Amino acid sequence: MYGVILAGGSGTRFWPKSREQSPKQLQKIVGTGTMLQNTVQRLLPLVSIENLYLGTNHQQAVETLRQLDSYGFFPDHLMAEPCSRNTALAIGLMAKVIIEKDPDAVMGVFPADHVVANSENFIKTLQKAETLAKKGYLVTLGIPPTRPETGFGYLQQGAEIEDGIYQVERFVEKPDRPEAEQYLENGHYFWNCGVFVWKASTILEELQQHAGNIYSQLETITSCIQTAKGKSPYLELDERGRNLFSSLPSLSIDYAVMENSSKVAIIPADIGWNDVGAWTALDDVSEKDSKGNIISGNVLVQDCSNSIIQAQNRLIAVLGLKDTIVVDSPDALLVCAKERSQDVKKLVESLNENGHPEGKQPATVNKPWGSYTVLDSGSSYVLKRIEVLPGEALSLQSHQHRSEHWTVVSGSAEVVRNKETFQLKSNDSITIPKNTRHRLGNPGSDLLIIIEIQFGHLLDESDISRYEDRYGRC
Amino acid sequence: MYGVILAGGSGTRFWPKSREQSPKQLQKIVGTGTMLQNTVQRLLPLVSIENLYLGTNHQQAVETLRQLDSYGFFPDHLMAEPCSRNTALAIGLMAKVIIEKDPDAVMGVFPADHVVANSENFIKTLQKAETLAKKGYLVTLGIPPTRPETGFGYLQQGAEIEDGIYQVERFVEKPDRPEAEQYLENGHYFWNCGVFVWKASTILEELQQHAGNIYSQLETITSCIQTAKGKSPYLELDERGRNLFSSLPSLSIDYAVMENSSKVAIIPADIGWNDVGAWTALDDVSEKDSKGNIISGNVLVQDCSNSIIQAQNRLIAVLGLKDTIVVDSPDALLVCAKERSQDVKKLVESLNENGHPEGKQPATVNKPWGSYTVLDSGSSYVLKRIEVLPGEALSLQSHQHRSEHWTVVSGSAEVVRNKETFQLKSNDSITIPKNTRHRLGNPGSDLLIIIEIQFGHLLDESDISRYEDRYGRC
Repeated sequence: MYGVILAGGSGTRFWPKSREQSPKQLQKIVGTGTMLQNTVQRLLPLVSIENLYLGTNHQQAVETLRQLDSYGFFPDHLMAEPCSRNTALAIGLMAKVIIEKDPDAVMGVFPADHVVANSENFIKTLQKAETLAKKGYLVTLGIPPTRPETGFGYLQQGAEIEDGIYQVERFVEKPDRPEAEQYLENGHYFWNCGVFVWKASTILEELQQHAGNIYSQLETITSCIQTAKGKSPYLELDERGRNLFSSLPSLSIDYAVMENSSKVAIIPADIGWNDVGAWTALDDVSEKDSKGNIISGNVLVQDCSNSIIQAQNRLIAVLGLKDTIVVDSPDALLVCAKERSQDVKKLVESLNENGHPEGKQPATVNKPWGSYTVLDSGSSYVLKRIEVLPGEALSLQSHQHRSEHWTVVSGSAEVVRNKETFQLKSNDSITIPKNTRHRLGNPGSDLLIIIEIQFGHLLDESDISRYEDRYGRC
Repeated sequence: MYGVILAGGSGTRFWPKSREQSPKQLQKIVGTGTMLQNTVQRLLPLVSIENLYLGTNHQQAVETLRQLDSYGFFPDHLMAEPCSRNTALAIGLMAKVIIEKDPDAVMGVFPADHVVANSENFIKTLQKAETLAKKGYLVTLGIPPTRPETGFGYLQQGAEIEDGIYQVERFVEKPDRPEAEQYLENGHYFWNCGVFVWKASTILEELQQHAGNIYSQLETITSCIQTAKGKSPYLELDERGRNLFSSLPSLSIDYAVMENSSKVAIIPADIGWNDVGAWTALDDVSEKDSKGNIISGNVLVQDCSNSIIQAQNRLIAVLGLKDTIVVDSPDALLVCAKERSQDVKKLVESLNENGHPEGKQPATVNKPWGSYTVLDSGSSYVLKRIEVLPGEALSLQSHQHRSEHWTVVSGSAEVVRNKETFQLKSNDSITIPKNTRHRLGNPGSDLLIIIEIQFGHLLDESDISRYEDRYGRC
């Protein structure tokens, strides 16, 4: 079986831990790894790593690959999308890539940021789904509801196809509360969890039939796939492909195909599924103390109950709280009544509208070569911690308005300054005057950590002239 | 009239803004200056700066003087106490210092960390008190209660001495709620606000009569007063004086004298007094938005009411909160139900018991020469911003286990390294290898700001050998 992980979401309800530029699936929220790593781990008993594919936004491509490095994930199984166009296009493109490799391929589609508590049932259900998919069905997993949830779409069960497998009567959009209560009581409604299993050929046929505008461009877009420059050879589109991709409609696979197809089958799946859609979802999936609090990090709790307290860099002391969410991050803090956790999404929209960069951008900014974190700033300086991954290098560049002072505190660095090249080790430092061509690289096999002091009276990320860049950013 | 400001408190209920090592009176909490600066400002119409004295803990002496520099406060009017021994000893010592200068002196005693909204009435009341003090009374200001407060001591009004001035019937310790309600209704009880006016000679006579164990040592302790080394010549005790001071009992002036003296007079004082005893006191003294919130700093508020939100370095986003206190600081965050604001003191005790340094020590650590702030740290480095006051210098020192990299980002520095001396300006940097004698000074008239990267595998404040120090710390 082939697996396609869709990892393009942003998870703004998990702000400030997740941000548009460092979304939920790349964060550790429950369990041992990040949401993405847990998703891969969960699939490996059924999908071998050489059959695993992933679609994500181009901004997350390098960090996504870094997180999957230890699993032996193939970089050229990652498709970096130029922009978000929902699931129909992403799935169609992946089906094209997979069918070229294996015309009979059965592929499962999996969101990257959900929790499945019962892995064993999950695998058993997928095996059943695979058998059914081979017969030409579009199989979708239906989660038996446990509460009258108004945040999900529902699947209404139809006639039985075979033992415990049903046709779908209809797809239901997010219901209101009375409807949701009725569905829960009725017993023939399931939550639509976004997990699908089908033959690549079947979904392409159905796309052709129900979403011709998307299907008709897939062949051309596929011919525009190229391998990214730099050390991580993931798949991306050339300029023509990017333009075509961007021009297509943003449709979900449910809307484009599932709601219209006669080939849909539901397998009820009692797998401990949770979409971890907001901070309150932790109540269902995390360990609590005796008063119902979920605590992580350096926290002192006194007389609090049913609260979620997540510390990161600094101490949090909480006193007398009830049903409150406190989530800290290096540059932004959320304090929120639990009953309002769904509205964190709107809060982030307000932040974006009001020009707060913290709405989208995390304190640690990922780059193709590693990351940087602003630690302090004053009227004439900015202080950063720069981490360069083994074998990576920043572009050859210069700045018009600032000089830079670098001190290596971990790993080894190769620094080009004008025509000289310096090999620096921990405890070495060097100054780069303004208007000087320079390049910072990590020739070693360990992470390079540098403390950078930028000095100048105009300090701006845009003050950069690039002369050479291995990631194609010149 | 002479003024004595008692500035030895810690104000732990205002944690994390105030800490034992950077207490409430040195913080800006309401109004334009710090609590201490506001206190001085309020007294100046009545007490000229050359008649103003101040007692505080030796750890706060330099920062206290720095805050009073612009008022022309005399450094040798500050008495730095070696430890806290409550008000009786502090007042006795100050009375001795003042009476030596002026045998007929009338002195007012003022806490450094209270708010007085009606300055005009405050001055008028003090003028009345001065007249009465000259007649030999121990005058205390009585605040007409506005609520059944259980957190203050009360004064019960006795017979009228003269127009609107009363004897005290009795001093009442903090009452329980029914008693407090009775006092409020009765109309003849006042809050004891800790403001006193008397002749220096009167309070010394009364100390002799009622607290002989303290009085009998005052002469000797006074003879142990010396001027501190360094650029701030405040008063301190020599070793003998420190030992004697520390050996004396910790008594309040109320307990030691006022409750036993027949010379006490009350002046009712309708002066808009507030002891700003806990975060909720801001409700009485700060401006609110239309929903009763008190907001400061970079805060996004959605659907919150009657809450206090204080941001400092980073963004705070709050959603759906009611009656909640959120106070951020660089290294510690408090989130607290308003009704529990008095228990912040216990919370800080818990922090101290559990070994959290954030309970006592602020992120920015004051030193006689300026301050330092830890910005980041890793397994082999610590990153600091160091601020050196004009004309000040750190000790001549060396470190066994670390090297230091300094970059000047503001002001000018004089750096001694072994036998060389370097004059550095902004954008200059220098490295100090381990085991190298060095000294950092600020020869300029502006603040010097340096970014320091300490590198080594044992990074500890105690790794310092001092060879020469202008503050007597060798």
